[in-house]
Amino acid sequence: MIALAIHGGAGAMPRRKMTPAAAARYKAALAHALEAGYEVLRRGNSLDAVCAAVVALEDSPLFNAGRGACYNTDEKHELDASVMDGATLRAGAVAAVSRIRNPVLAARAVMEKSRHVLLAGRGAERFARAHGLELVPDSYFATQSRLAALRKKLVGHHGTVGAVARDANGNLAAATSTGGYTGKLPGRVGDSPIIGAGNYADNACAVSGTGLGEAFIRGVLAYDVAARMRYLGEPLAKAARAAMRKLAGLQGDGGLIAVDHRGNIVMPFNSEGMYRAAIDRKGRRTIAIY
Amino acid sequence: MIALAIHGGAGAMPRRKMTPAAAARYKAALAHALEAGYEVLRRGNSLDAVCAAVVALEDSPLFNAGRGACYNTDEKHELDASVMDGATLRAGAVAAVSRIRNPVLAARAVMEKSRHVLLAGRGAERFARAHGLELVPDSYFATQSRLAALRKKLVGHHGTVGAVARDANGNLAAATSTGGYTGKLPGRVGDSPIIGAGNYADNACAVSGTGLGEAFIRGVLAYDVAARMRYLGEPLAKAARAAMRKLAGLQGDGGLIAVDHRGNIVMPFNSEGMYRAAIDRKGRRTIAIY
Repeated sequence: MIALAIHGGAGAMPRRKMTPAAAARYKAALAHALEAGYEVLRRGNSLDAVCAAVVALEDSPLFNAGRGACYNTDEKHELDASVMDGATLRAGAVAAVSRIRNPVLAARAVMEKSRHVLLAGRGAERFARAHGLELVPDSYFATQSRLAALRKKLVGHHGTVGAVARDANGNLAAATSTGGYTGKLPGRVGDSPIIGAGNYADNACAVSGTGLGEAFIRGVLAYDVAARMRYLGEPLAKAARAAMRKLAGLQGDGGLIAVDHRGNIVMPFNSEGMYRAAIDRKGRRTIAIY
Repeated sequence: MIALAIHGGAGAMPRRKMTPAAAARYKAALAHALEAGYEVLRRGNSLDAVCAAVVALEDSPLFNAGRGACYNTDEKHELDASVMDGATLRAGAVAAVSRIRNPVLAARAVMEKSRHVLLAGRGAERFARAHGLELVPDSYFATQSRLAALRKKLVGHHGTVGAVARDANGNLAAATSTGGYTGKLPGRVGDSPIIGAGNYADNACAVSGTGLGEAFIRGVLAYDVAARMRYLGEPLAKAARAAMRKLAGLQGDGGLIAVDHRGNIVMPFNSEGMYRAAIDRKGRRTIAIY
C-alpha cells in the first residue's frame, strides 16, 4: 500500500482572478509532478519519490520554488529546501542559495554526503558544485510575473512546494522547497529548510508545510503534528487540525500535507486555496486548488 | 520567584587536561555571565536577562561563541544565534554570520525589528548594520588555540553558549549562540539558530541545547522537551531526560539547560562535561564543569 501527496503552495491565486485556462495549467503541472513521484514510488522508496515530485515542481515556472521563484528586495532569488527520511531520521537542507537549479537535490546531497544537516548561502553552493549538482545563472530562475509582483510591492505572496509519501515498505519521507516570498529581505530563511518547522518525517507521519514560514517556525508546526500523534495518540487528521489551529493562533495562514504510517493523507489549509494533489492508498487521484 | 541557568557548552575540555587554573578561569567567566544575567533578571524580564548572560559569554574568548568562536575549514568564523520569548512565542535568529560582534543581539533585532525569524549570511549582516549593531573585523573573533585546533584537525569540538530564565512575572525566555564546531564546512548551520532544535521557549519551559547540532535538529530536541511536558504531562526533569535519551539514540552527545514555569532548573548532559551555572528559585548558586 503506497500513498503520495504533493502541494504547490498555499499562496494560490485568488479564485476571482483564476481563469479556467490558468487553473488547467496549474492542474496539469500538479498532475505531472504527481505522476513523476508516483512512478518512482511504485518501483522504489518514499525518499526517491518525494524528491522526484519536488524536482518536477521546482522545474515548473508556475510554482514558487526553483524556476519561477519569488524575488527578494534585492530583486534576487534565494531558495530554501529540505528533505527528511522517516525511516532513519536523516535530514538535509539548504538555505538562501541562489544558483542551484534543484535545491531539493542539494538538500539530499547534504543529507547523504556530508556530516551536516543544513548548509546556507555560498557554502551550500560550493558544496553542491563539488557534488556534481547543476548550477544555473540568475536568469534561469527569472519570471516576468514574479518580478512585476515585486515591483508592484505585492509583498506577502508566499508559495512553497512539497511532497510526502509512504512506500510499500512502510517508510515515510518528506521534501519541501521554496523561493520564500516576494519582497523578503536578503538572507531571510523561512520554514522550508527547517526540520520540524516546514518539513518533518519519521515513520509515523511525514509533513510538508506551506504558508507564513515565520509562524511555522515559531510553532514548530511540522513536528507538532508528529508529537501530537505520538504523545497524545491522536490520529493524523486530528493532529493536523490542531496544527492548523496553532498556525491561526500565530496569525499565520497556510496549509500542510501529511501522510501517516497507514498511508492516510490529509491536506488542510486556511488560506483561500492550496495547489495540491494526491494518490491515496487505494489509488484514487485528487487534484485541487480551492 | 526568579531563576536563571546558563551554559558554556557541552564540549568541555577533558577532565584529565583541565588544570586547576584553567577550571578557575572557566568558572570565573561563568560566574560573570551568571551575575550579568541575574542582575538584569532581578530588575527586569527574562528576555533581557538571557540576552545579557549570552552577551557576556559571547564576549569571553573562553567559549565557542562570539569572540573565541571555532574556525571552519576555510579558517573563518561563521556564527549562529537565536532568541525566543516564551510569553509571545516571538523568535529571532541569525545564521552563518561573520562580522557581528554579538550574534544574540542581532537575533533579537531580527525578532523585534523585522517580519522575519531567521536571517542568514551577508543579508543578516546588512540587517544588523542597518539596525546599529556593532560589526567587527575577522580578527576580533580570532584565538590562537582555536586556530591550532583546526590545523591539528581536531574536528568535532563543539561548544555553544546559552541561557534560560524565568522572571518574576512568570515569563520564560531562551537564548543560544555558537561558533559551530572546528572543521565544519563553510555555510554549515547548526541547531543553535533553529527554533525547536537548539533553542525554544514558551511559558511552560525554556530550553537551550549544546552538543552535536545535527542530532538536535533531527530530533527537534528543544521543542520535544516542551511537547512532552504539554502532551504527556511530564515534569521538566523527566521530559529533559527523555530528550537526552533521544539525543543518545541519534548518536549525539551534548546537553541542555531548561527552566519551567515554576522556576525549576535542569542541566543534564551525556558528554564528559558541560560548563554550566545557575541561580535557582531559592537563590542558590551552582557553577560546575563536570
